[in-house]
Amino acid sequence: MSDRDVALGDMSPDEFRRAGYLAVDWAADYLASVQDYPVLARTEPGAVRRRLPASPPKAPESLESMLADLTSVIVPGITHWNHPAFFAYFAITGSGPGILGELLTAALNINGMLWKTSPAATELEEVALDWLRQMVGLPDGWMGIIMDTASIASLCAIAAAREAAEPHLREQGMAGGPRLRLYTSEQAHSSIEKAAIVLGLGRHGVRKIPVDREFRMDPGALAAAVTEDRRAGWRPFCVAATVGTTSTTSVDPVPAIADVCARERLWLHVDGAYAGMAALLPEFRWVLEGCHQADSVVINPHKWLFTPIDCSAFYCARPEVLRSAFSLVPEYLRTTESDQAAVRDLMDYGVQLGRRFRALKLWMVIRHFGWEGLAARIREHIRLGQQFRSWVDAHPDFERMAPAPLSVVCFRARPADLRARADEHDGYLDRLNEALLEEVNATGRAYLSHTRLKGRLTLRLAVGNLRTTEAHVREAWDLLQQHAAQLDNKLRTE
Amino acid sequence: MSDRDVALGDMSPDEFRRAGYLAVDWAADYLASVQDYPVLARTEPGAVRRRLPASPPKAPESLESMLADLTSVIVPGITHWNHPAFFAYFAITGSGPGILGELLTAALNINGMLWKTSPAATELEEVALDWLRQMVGLPDGWMGIIMDTASIASLCAIAAAREAAEPHLREQGMAGGPRLRLYTSEQAHSSIEKAAIVLGLGRHGVRKIPVDREFRMDPGALAAAVTEDRRAGWRPFCVAATVGTTSTTSVDPVPAIADVCARERLWLHVDGAYAGMAALLPEFRWVLEGCHQADSVVINPHKWLFTPIDCSAFYCARPEVLRSAFSLVPEYLRTTESDQAAVRDLMDYGVQLGRRFRALKLWMVIRHFGWEGLAARIREHIRLGQQFRSWVDAHPDFERMAPAPLSVVCFRARPADLRARADEHDGYLDRLNEALLEEVNATGRAYLSHTRLKGRLTLRLAVGNLRTTEAHVREAWDLLQQHAAQLDNKLRTE
Repeated sequence: MSDRDVALGDMSPDEFRRAGYLAVDWAADYLASVQDYPVLARTEPGAVRRRLPASPPKAPESLESMLADLTSVIVPGITHWNHPAFFAYFAITGSGPGILGELLTAALNINGMLWKTSPAATELEEVALDWLRQMVGLPDGWMGIIMDTASIASLCAIAAAREAAEPHLREQGMAGGPRLRLYTSEQAHSSIEKAAIVLGLGRHGVRKIPVDREFRMDPGALAAAVTEDRRAGWRPFCVAATVGTTSTTSVDPVPAIADVCARERLWLHVDGAYAGMAALLPEFRWVLEGCHQADSVVINPHKWLFTPIDCSAFYCARPEVLRSAFSLVPEYLRTTESDQAAVRDLMDYGVQLGRRFRALKLWMVIRHFGWEGLAARIREHIRLGQQFRSWVDAHPDFERMAPAPLSVVCFRARPADLRARADEHDGYLDRLNEALLEEVNATGRAYLSHTRLKGRLTLRLAVGNLRTTEAHVREAWDLLQQHAAQLDNKLRTE
Repeated sequence: MSDRDVALGDMSPDEFRRAGYLAVDWAADYLASVQDYPVLARTEPGAVRRRLPASPPKAPESLESMLADLTSVIVPGITHWNHPAFFAYFAITGSGPGILGELLTAALNINGMLWKTSPAATELEEVALDWLRQMVGLPDGWMGIIMDTASIASLCAIAAAREAAEPHLREQGMAGGPRLRLYTSEQAHSSIEKAAIVLGLGRHGVRKIPVDREFRMDPGALAAAVTEDRRAGWRPFCVAATVGTTSTTSVDPVPAIADVCARERLWLHVDGAYAGMAALLPEFRWVLEGCHQADSVVINPHKWLFTPIDCSAFYCARPEVLRSAFSLVPEYLRTTESDQAAVRDLMDYGVQLGRRFRALKLWMVIRHFGWEGLAARIREHIRLGQQFRSWVDAHPDFERMAPAPLSVVCFRARPADLRARADEHDGYLDRLNEALLEEVNATGRAYLSHTRLKGRLTLRLAVGNLRTTEAHVREAWDLLQQHAAQLDNKLRTE
């Protein structure tokens, strides 16, 4: 190796090996001690930024100095999603095999935009997604493709729905076209509405269908809305149902919604980002019931299949429509194999041209845990969620705010003496629960998030991290009881 | 640790350490030997897939077995973007510090959607992007945010342009709205047109402006097109200029384009995904000339700043417009800090809700090489490109097809005796060069890609990998000369 190579190349493989061991050690130590950190970062806005140099270094710095800064400057500003008492949003795990998958993906650093630019990337993605399809019981023959996030997957689904309904819009644009309307429930994720804004439907192009008492889309209301809209000159084209809504993990009645879609010729997209994975369990196969009638489904391995962010599995029954919506092949991306239609170029099925080799980590996660091991872990998270639910249900000073079919429980503190006419006390209960959330999170020993249900501030406890055991759920419950009692005393005497 | 924890948890930190060393060893060995593989994968469609089990394993498998499969099944199907003779598309490098950054990001596995969900992620992103901004000389005060790809960054830019021009569309949708029109050059990347399709502008909503003889957008033609379109009832709203087009790396005259945009009140987005990074060199600062008048600029650290895919740096002079285009905050994502406007939640500035901690790898790459080290490497790539250019220019049987200002050279074989009236021989020259590309790529000792310029098949040699030395460029050149001479003989005698 010449001086030039040393001066202007990458770090040498030997240096990489040495540095890699240091980084692995750092990561192993971090993972071994993550439960010792406060879950929620305790940092003031700007505090991390102020501790970092305002300008880039001119000369090289050592990995040791970076790892030292990672420990002393960055980690104190991290909210630890790896912490066993992370119960906010949807709890996730970047498991060991997934982390190492990311290392190997970065080392290979391929761009799988075309089959030709790494055939193994396209084909492993097909295989890994077919494995996952089998595990959750989606129909044979559907195309699977990895997207970065469910936000993008749902956007692609709605774009395909638009293409299916009004294929001329791809050329002519939406100005002058029909007023398209998308249907989703009041409880759907904000990414559905954001996709509608991006795609040019506007917020008016989204009609939010009411939910039943258990926060599930009302298929009768859906059918009525579609009929009403057609009369009023709208062009209904797509329904986005949710399997596991973000607030309560309610599961929309997909079979009934699919009937409406079939009758009205609407594209049915199912957002199963979180709860779709429960279908790995025979006893929870029902969550994806009716999805064989859908046109597209998204489920997120980075949510509940222990795969590091980002990895969203998008399944489509009509990949040719997806391709029509997105394919655009300039000369510089043409290949013989594609011209001969012998292969699938994944760039043709979505927004992004560049594609990381995300299938590798998913493949490694599935192999490391095995189908049964994955199912056992998801089953355990549901067991822990149900355990917490039973504690809430049994406690006179708490109430559950929604059904809890999976590993997420919605609840609030509601002192027993306010039970009779709780509605009249909603203002007080909102204040109590907001303060309760803040106090419990401030302990650093648990992190929960909130939502609002029927106008009421609602706390959420979500189980999904592989490090979480019953002891962690128990501690969160103890903290909640203790702080609720203290706060109730304090607030009533103010 | 209880039996349950062992049975249902993640791999233990000690297992992770041991497995991590194995994975680092695999990666180090791969990087040490990457030049020994054929650059372009030699695999038939379906060959990799057929060697993988059709169904997922029920029981756990070892990391050793995965690494063995990686070597024997996956790597033969990899096109090695790490190979020093990868000269196709834009050559890239996932450098050592970047790979380790990905490992650490996956180990932390945070979702930086909100400031609160890891303040350090948001703030390190601000700092790292500000460092990069300083290095390329973009204006002080611009907001920097990491997107996954330039495809998404440009989509966000055009969405912001739409928001700036017609803010009511976010609510009302584009049906019934004005016919919006976007301007970009004939040589712009396909992602611009794809973004227009996604956003509902349609392909008709994109007007492609002619280029000059050096493949740069003609600002006079742009101004005329805007005037003509206004008269015809279009609503011009955005211009997407390119700094470093994909085919030839031509640099649009941004200052003159910016004048048109200022006069016509159009959002100016600059796609500098590849060439923007050349502005790290004082002698190439000119590539971003005029960009201080732009509204948004994208440059890709995963293209020419040695950062693993994906990492695209998006800069915006008007972040409040970007926020208006995308922000949508449901109750379950509200935080006190955001309500008080004390912090920036990055989910508000783009399509995706989930956000990997991509800033970490960029920060580590900048620190590992240092500003001067990064500049020296980019300078060397340009030197190698110019070296190749001089060889093409000096050879009687080759011709250059476009200016080559940076590290990419467009050329074709054109035997000396066909020089006089080459136009008449374009059919033959297309066949010759297509065969030449295929033969050289089939050697496995270099991988080049192609484009079409003025209708003519054109070969491209792109330098951008840290392992590439003059010897690799020289070998590619030798292969090209040798195969061109042989093929010319063969094809003429057929």
